[in-house]
Amino acid sequence: MSNARLGCAVLGLGRMGYRHANILATQVPEARLVAVSDALAGRTAEVAADFGVRGSTDWREIVADPEVDAVIVATPSTTHAEICIAAAKAGKAIFCEKPLALTVAECEAIGQAVDAAGVPFQLGFMRRFDPGYAAARRAIDEGAIGDVVAYNGISRDPEAPPEAYVAESGGIYLDCLIHEFDIARFLMGDEVTRVYATGKALVYPWFAKYEDVDTAHVILEFARGGIGHIEGSRHAFYGYDIRGEVIGTKGTITIGYQRQTPIMLLTRAGVTHDFVPGFLERFEQSYAIEIVEFVNAVRAGRKPSVGVWDGRQALAVALAAGKSQRLGRPVALEEV
Amino acid sequence: MSNARLGCAVLGLGRMGYRHANILATQVPEARLVAVSDALAGRTAEVAADFGVRGSTDWREIVADPEVDAVIVATPSTTHAEICIAAAKAGKAIFCEKPLALTVAECEAIGQAVDAAGVPFQLGFMRRFDPGYAAARRAIDEGAIGDVVAYNGISRDPEAPPEAYVAESGGIYLDCLIHEFDIARFLMGDEVTRVYATGKALVYPWFAKYEDVDTAHVILEFARGGIGHIEGSRHAFYGYDIRGEVIGTKGTITIGYQRQTPIMLLTRAGVTHDFVPGFLERFEQSYAIEIVEFVNAVRAGRKPSVGVWDGRQALAVALAAGKSQRLGRPVALEEV
Amino acid sequence: MSNARLGCAVLGLGRMGYRHANILATQVPEARLVAVSDALAGRTAEVAADFGVRGSTDWREIVADPEVDAVIVATPSTTHAEICIAAAKAGKAIFCEKPLALTVAECEAIGQAVDAAGVPFQLGFMRRFDPGYAAARRAIDEGAIGDVVAYNGISRDPEAPPEAYVAESGGIYLDCLIHEFDIARFLMGDEVTRVYATGKALVYPWFAKYEDVDTAHVILEFARGGIGHIEGSRHAFYGYDIRGEVIGTKGTITIGYQRQTPIMLLTRAGVTHDFVPGFLERFEQSYAIEIVEFVNAVRAGRKPSVGVWDGRQALAVALAAGKSQRLGRPVALEEV
Amino acid sequence: MSNARLGCAVLGLGRMGYRHANILATQVPEARLVAVSDALAGRTAEVAADFGVRGSTDWREIVADPEVDAVIVATPSTTHAEICIAAAKAGKAIFCEKPLALTVAECEAIGQAVDAAGVPFQLGFMRRFDPGYAAARRAIDEGAIGDVVAYNGISRDPEAPPEAYVAESGGIYLDCLIHEFDIARFLMGDEVTRVYATGKALVYPWFAKYEDVDTAHVILEFARGGIGHIEGSRHAFYGYDIRGEVIGTKGTITIGYQRQTPIMLLTRAGVTHDFVPGFLERFEQSYAIEIVEFVNAVRAGRKPSVGVWDGRQALAVALAAGKSQRLGRPVALEEV
Repeated sequence: MSNARLGCAVLGLGRMGYRHANILATQVPEARLVAVSDALAGRTAEVAADFGVRGSTDWREIVADPEVDAVIVATPSTTHAEICIAAAKAGKAIFCEKPLALTVAECEAIGQAVDAAGVPFQLGFMRRFDPGYAAARRAIDEGAIGDVVAYNGISRDPEAPPEAYVAESGGIYLDCLIHEFDIARFLMGDEVTRVYATGKALVYPWFAKYEDVDTAHVILEFARGGIGHIEGSRHAFYGYDIRGEVIGTKGTITIGYQRQTPIMLLTRAGVTHDFVPGFLERFEQSYAIEIVEFVNAVRAGRKPSVGVWDGRQALAVALAAGKSQRLGRPVALEEV
Repeated sequence: MSNARLGCAVLGLGRMGYRHANILATQVPEARLVAVSDALAGRTAEVAADFGVRGSTDWREIVADPEVDAVIVATPSTTHAEICIAAAKAGKAIFCEKPLALTVAECEAIGQAVDAAGVPFQLGFMRRFDPGYAAARRAIDEGAIGDVVAYNGISRDPEAPPEAYVAESGGIYLDCLIHEFDIARFLMGDEVTRVYATGKALVYPWFAKYEDVDTAHVILEFARGGIGHIEGSRHAFYGYDIRGEVIGTKGTITIGYQRQTPIMLLTRAGVTHDFVPGFLERFEQSYAIEIVEFVNAVRAGRKPSVGVWDGRQALAVALAAGKSQRLGRPVALEEV
Repeated sequence: MSNARLGCAVLGLGRMGYRHANILATQVPEARLVAVSDALAGRTAEVAADFGVRGSTDWREIVADPEVDAVIVATPSTTHAEICIAAAKAGKAIFCEKPLALTVAECEAIGQAVDAAGVPFQLGFMRRFDPGYAAARRAIDEGAIGDVVAYNGISRDPEAPPEAYVAESGGIYLDCLIHEFDIARFLMGDEVTRVYATGKALVYPWFAKYEDVDTAHVILEFARGGIGHIEGSRHAFYGYDIRGEVIGTKGTITIGYQRQTPIMLLTRAGVTHDFVPGFLERFEQSYAIEIVEFVNAVRAGRKPSVGVWDGRQALAVALAAGKSQRLGRPVALEEV
Repeated sequence: MSNARLGCAVLGLGRMGYRHANILATQVPEARLVAVSDALAGRTAEVAADFGVRGSTDWREIVADPEVDAVIVATPSTTHAEICIAAAKAGKAIFCEKPLALTVAECEAIGQAVDAAGVPFQLGFMRRFDPGYAAARRAIDEGAIGDVVAYNGISRDPEAPPEAYVAESGGIYLDCLIHEFDIARFLMGDEVTRVYATGKALVYPWFAKYEDVDTAHVILEFARGGIGHIEGSRHAFYGYDIRGEVIGTKGTITIGYQRQTPIMLLTRAGVTHDFVPGFLERFEQSYAIEIVEFVNAVRAGRKPSVGVWDGRQALAVALAAGKSQRLGRPVALEEV
């Protein structure tokens, strides 16, 4: 790729698509936002005007546009496979939001299209670019904790999403904990082979209507013998609580923030501070860094560090967790 | 019971028995240490001399002694049932170290003897008297977090015990995590109904020789629908790491210390502090408080707050965890 | 001011001027960077090219440019008075880096020019826009700690600046602690009346050559009877350590970060984490927020919240501190 | 001294004297409490009964008692000189509460008597035995931070003592900050040469009636060129806040606790924990350790590590601080 700025188009203009468009427009001098697209005409027009770029409600038109070097796919997960495959065939570099797709078969179809076309592909597992998780990975690589043998992750939302969202979300494993499943693989440097999951609707009984849970525990077994545990919930109330621990044969690394605003109040009632309120605050930097990394990798001809296989594997773990919870027994990854 | 000091005898003079004797002799003015007993004659003589009290290698003789109002049973777990039953028949108040016994049947036999004799009985779950866990229980009772719905516990030893100890320990669930099982019941205010456990020998392969593991995850399901998760390990290296979280419908309480010595070192290499080194440091106060509470309860005619039933239930969870790990499936409590 | 974007020029293209130019070019859609200027022709050309704007080595030319609505003055402190006065006469809005000037008389001349011209003026005390200090101010306003009676500040650089910088810096009070003097006034909501300062060259004896110190303590007395204490140093080594405390009649607020990367390493050697490395990391957000606030205030016709008077008062405290150190006695503010 | 237990008498049975008696009676097997004495007959009788020892309202009688090997002097400070000198002449080992006396001349008279008699003498600066301060001293000795160049201390009481106490206390420097002055000398390994102090009655205006302040800042200059700063107050409200920092040429050590009970509450209102409530909780261990050290030193024929000179020097700093505050200028130590 030449020195020219990378022509980018964002497909899907929900919260995440808009964020990606904004990052491309303001924080990545090596990229040029050239087009946006959403199924809703009004939204498309509005966002196109915000950024002074072309808008279209037809993603196919964008994918066919020769000015577009790369597409950012932030449409509903059900459409990822079709769009990614078309974009690959059109020779576009692809950045796709998580989850990659809703079935392992779709993931594999995407993988085949991407491989056949030889286009760069990056999956939106932004946590890998978080200064905390990235520093943990580097420290492991430098031998700080010996051989890694276990990972523990906590992922708590401050409250339930709207009921309509829950109805469509695919459930806690697919919607939320897929980030943890990816990070567990990333930090363990290994593949999950077997999963046991238990979940309950402890605080929001209405989750049961959608066969979803607001609290889940997942035990992961890894190919080289390691073990993992993920706890997820939708009712932390005090904030957005994301914590991890990687345990090695010589030490442990913990990852996480407990505070947002750098003040504490000390009174007769005790010492009080706030907590990180939400994922946008916690991962604000990560969302920018992942896009910068994508643009840099594409321009440099490097393969992005997180790809289709990662999306496929995290999805498989999420599906196995759901199946395990339904069946009440451990589920091997090849069962999904 | 009159105003007289409570005549106490300690049976079993290993590390824990000696500690109880010392606490009784120096920190509990309402008690009087009158006798000690160990199967080893030399040890008995030595400890008797240390405290200036009568020694005997025959616990039966101590139990028969009219000067003895209460016995502290710190003998090997296999002997608890026989000794406790004899002591109950002799009308003695009983403080018994954990685990109460090695089978549910033995626990129940002890319960019947204690009930029949109407003697006070306290089990050595000292954590309930730790300022942290006790404060958590009080905060829950005061409604600080609404209804409790989940408990998460971490229990990490800094390193493996000697191989000879592991061989006889009964395994990580019985030896270590039984404290967590009791605390989970204590803080949830509920009974465990079903258990799933996975364990591995990740750092010390030789644990496998004894069908034991150095890392375990246990998922607990409770009668009223709550959920729990316990992680235990024998390889924290950085220290003795005991942490808990109780999650309610309105908030969360975390329990735990991260430091021992109140200094930090700040240099070009970063900020460094130490960690609680071991269980004696972490629970030093608890060991004293539980004995004071026992003596006070007996003298006041109050039923001690942690009894035979608690020992039986924690044991049942530990046995179910071991069985679950062996079978690779969840195990209901009534299966053990 | 109309809806048009605010035409901005940056004068002085050292580290801070470049940073301001970059913020204006990429993070403030309401502003338009139109020109840059530095006494060095090469630097001017380079930065002008970076941002695709006009460059001139003659600041007078920029100040005369009708396209320029506002100037950002980041030239050496000795030139602030001349430039600010000229810019005020030309009717430009002014953002000026700290220190405002090197004498109280110069500060007052700037104040007269700004008042006579009626132009908006903001001083670069970016800490007031830091999420921590700003939250502390808000909490005070909300009555969280009653009436404020004392402020304690710590300001430690990780190491000495280059010797050439120290030679020209004006000394620790003017170069470093002026931020603390401003924040003390900001959080106390009061004026300093008397100052006592002691300083030493404890780690870098060569500071003495420049009549400067690497460690200083300053005690501030306030008009309404409050008290303040500032500690500053140039040898923290472990990082950039900025901490504050505001003490009120009902409680205390502490302000500060202790960590940069959200990981901790736990090994047999203890628990280790890093520290905020430098002022750019600590106040990255503040530098952007202060520029956004300036642009917003100018466009809205609001008076910026930190102005000439604040620059004059902080300077007077710094000068009084230097004088106190030299004389070995407290110095009243009117003495400088 | 033989293997016999050290016969100890406690003179002065206020809060601190009672505490010492209790520690001797229950936690120091190498000592034997043989007598107690207070000017109040009722108090003497009551405490004598509590511990089953002899009581006398006449300290001279106790000092003359051949069964008494050592006296613990916890009487009002005005009586320390007379009692210590008499005890030294009687050949008793002496443990004396702080402050040693109220004038430098009295301190020196005590020193001469102790030296002439060759008796062991320990001053009650218990902080030196606190695990935190002691660990800091050890780390310094091990070279962890290079050469020490500065000390910063904070000493905040949660609230004002009763007015009657303030009236007799000798003021904040003598009553409170004397501990800080000693610790500064202990950790710096150096002597203070000059002092500047400022104080105000910020929260309790009635302190002014007694020429006392509720907030003070003291700057210390040391013989080898180092610098110190002490902040003291009587209105922390949130708890008893004792913090220190020793700054060296290679790093910094911080000393201090921020929490008492090991739980945190996390709710929508934020994260809350408690604070160390008072000096008895903060220094509980230190009070026991200092007595154990005294008894051990006397029995082993070792000179206690903190003696008359330390009491004299800390007093001199306190007096110089008071004088500095009154005069509004720095005061050299030889001026008091």
